[in-house]
Amino acid sequence: MNDFRYQAPTRYNFGRGAENKVGAEALAEGMTRVLVVYGHNSAKRSGVLDRVLASLDGAGIFHTEMGGIDPNPTDDRVYEGIDIVRANNLNGVIAVGGGSVIDTAKAIAGGAVYDGDFWDFWAGKAVMDKALPVGVVLTIPAAGSEGSGNSVITKKDGMHKISLRTDTALRPRFALLNPELTFTLPPYQTAAGIVDMMAHIFERYYSPTPDVEVTDRIAEGLLRAIIDMAPRVMANPADYEARANIMWAGTQAHNGVCGCGRVEDWASHGLEHELSALYGVTHGAGLAVVNPAWMTYATSKNPAKVAQMARRVFDVTEEDDTRAALEGIRRLRAFYRSIGMPVTLADLGVENPDIETLVRNVHVNKGTPFGGYIKLYPEDSRAIYTLMLDAR
Amino acid sequence: MNDFRYQAPTRYNFGRGAENKVGAEALAEGMTRVLVVYGHNSAKRSGVLDRVLASLDGAGIFHTEMGGIDPNPTDDRVYEGIDIVRANNLNGVIAVGGGSVIDTAKAIAGGAVYDGDFWDFWAGKAVMDKALPVGVVLTIPAAGSEGSGNSVITKKDGMHKISLRTDTALRPRFALLNPELTFTLPPYQTAAGIVDMMAHIFERYYSPTPDVEVTDRIAEGLLRAIIDMAPRVMANPADYEARANIMWAGTQAHNGVCGCGRVEDWASHGLEHELSALYGVTHGAGLAVVNPAWMTYATSKNPAKVAQMARRVFDVTEEDDTRAALEGIRRLRAFYRSIGMPVTLADLGVENPDIETLVRNVHVNKGTPFGGYIKLYPEDSRAIYTLMLDAR
Repeated sequence: MNDFRYQAPTRYNFGRGAENKVGAEALAEGMTRVLVVYGHNSAKRSGVLDRVLASLDGAGIFHTEMGGIDPNPTDDRVYEGIDIVRANNLNGVIAVGGGSVIDTAKAIAGGAVYDGDFWDFWAGKAVMDKALPVGVVLTIPAAGSEGSGNSVITKKDGMHKISLRTDTALRPRFALLNPELTFTLPPYQTAAGIVDMMAHIFERYYSPTPDVEVTDRIAEGLLRAIIDMAPRVMANPADYEARANIMWAGTQAHNGVCGCGRVEDWASHGLEHELSALYGVTHGAGLAVVNPAWMTYATSKNPAKVAQMARRVFDVTEEDDTRAALEGIRRLRAFYRSIGMPVTLADLGVENPDIETLVRNVHVNKGTPFGGYIKLYPEDSRAIYTLMLDAR
Repeated sequence: MNDFRYQAPTRYNFGRGAENKVGAEALAEGMTRVLVVYGHNSAKRSGVLDRVLASLDGAGIFHTEMGGIDPNPTDDRVYEGIDIVRANNLNGVIAVGGGSVIDTAKAIAGGAVYDGDFWDFWAGKAVMDKALPVGVVLTIPAAGSEGSGNSVITKKDGMHKISLRTDTALRPRFALLNPELTFTLPPYQTAAGIVDMMAHIFERYYSPTPDVEVTDRIAEGLLRAIIDMAPRVMANPADYEARANIMWAGTQAHNGVCGCGRVEDWASHGLEHELSALYGVTHGAGLAVVNPAWMTYATSKNPAKVAQMARRVFDVTEEDDTRAALEGIRRLRAFYRSIGMPVTLADLGVENPDIETLVRNVHVNKGTPFGGYIKLYPEDSRAIYTLMLDAR
């Protein structure tokens, strides 16, 4: 086990009607003038935005709103938000939405208290150690941003999508998790969210660090819980108990507890990023294609951890590591298919992938080699993209 | 899943030499004048106390010391500590030790900023919402107090042992976890600590709340990790990796994550408390006797969750719930025996237990009925104590 430093101070309120506590929670964090960030119509249509604003009004908190945050949120909205915060002397940011909205809110909160260009942090030119307090009302369980110190923002000029990871500066002060708010998510988005949270666990699980048994077992347990609950949410979108488990799993998947004491991998996110950039595929759906392909390739290099996953998550009983690993990957793909997710590039709608461009771009963005469990050089990345053509 | 509120803000520094960070960590929490609380000779003999004091000196932090904290720490030392804090205008408390030392430090920290008698909080006459900041250098992994908001103190007058649970007021601001500090723990203490952390998980795991799959899987994973690592620490006390996993598991076992979303049980702790009070047995050793007996009785009332534990933690394949549960309990007892722990009252050295007194006392202290998974009336408690006579 490697040395580590870990702190996850976010205060969670979980349950029905949690969004109505936003006023009291914000006041407890000293927020008296806030920017409320949200996405598109669903927050308004569902009534959750109205309830959030009513709760803030009830607590006497001044608020102004910024809506229309898109998936893969961009720096222009962050600059806009920083301007609003400064013009109105705001002292907190409330996100009502999923990862894109939360990440935008975080970037605004960090940028508003910095004299330079907020992008300095994402560009690695400055280290963020403070931000305005951020509160979250979660409506999409997937990205795990409600409990993480991370924020992924895309610079429109050049479309650089960069993930900033802070220890605690960008961890939300509080997150309000009401599973009922997720009842109306479309099936494809529900499933893509499930793949996304599983990928957050896999990226930490596949590690070259030995003897991280506690962290492994937590990761495996979360994967099992997600896999058990997924069919229920797909069959009955209003299954509160299953939605609740998926929601809480998504938070635990990305709050860092699955990474304690080890080197992480994150190669699959790099490989998927290029698919999203070149072909516009949904991040979670792309990961459903990338993760099993990466695991298949990793099995050829170092089957041990893939076999452990197969045995502990999918109850594979094969004694040979390689066979066990491949059987586990087969079951993982079958699971993804069962929730309507793609498992090949063709399933994703990418019929003639430009693998050479994908390989070139991923090494430009991630460097050479990249990855934690196995190191990927261009020939490795090329082999993994090729494995996405076929899912036998 | 029940609604819940959860916040575990403690900052962990985990790894070799972690205790040398105490000065910097204390300063980061605004501590400039601290009381260092510790136990008996081991903290001095091992050199850890010297290293802690040197780190505080290096950070320019004024300190005064209070040693000699006993197991089952008492209110008199808390009053003494509060007096020292006030007389010296201290603004923080550092615990160097295990649960007893940490719980004393917490009680001092809470009492020092309260105008009344600190015992008011333990007696339920006041609600603690603030305390001086507490930092921990952990030397005994068992109680989990380094990450919890709890403190167990015994009032000498009448020997009332009461556990106070706060949301966050008593959660340490930081905890420094160096597995090397546990290499010299005697085998019996190591094993009793392992039983204690497993019991903290069981008390939360045995719940009447259905559909808490994420929390269940985390709990089961921690139990498996502990059971996997325990033989290594017993065989080789200086196995860093195994010690590290046991240490981190002990923190996770009691920081509340295993209780999220459900009613907890805690009957076994109540039953064990009376054994410790009447016969002076070590808490962890007593739990090794109580937990399986309680599970055996619970199986007769509601075998489902015990069977789930048997299948998921001990890989029992029996289809019948009662048979599966009993086989799981058998394997749990075999595990406890394998690490040198008692499984009957006779093993504990209690040859002729006064069961009627135990039953009377537990219902005086816990009320009637008590327990979460099953409700215990005096006839149930009597049956469970009787089951401790024999471990077939």
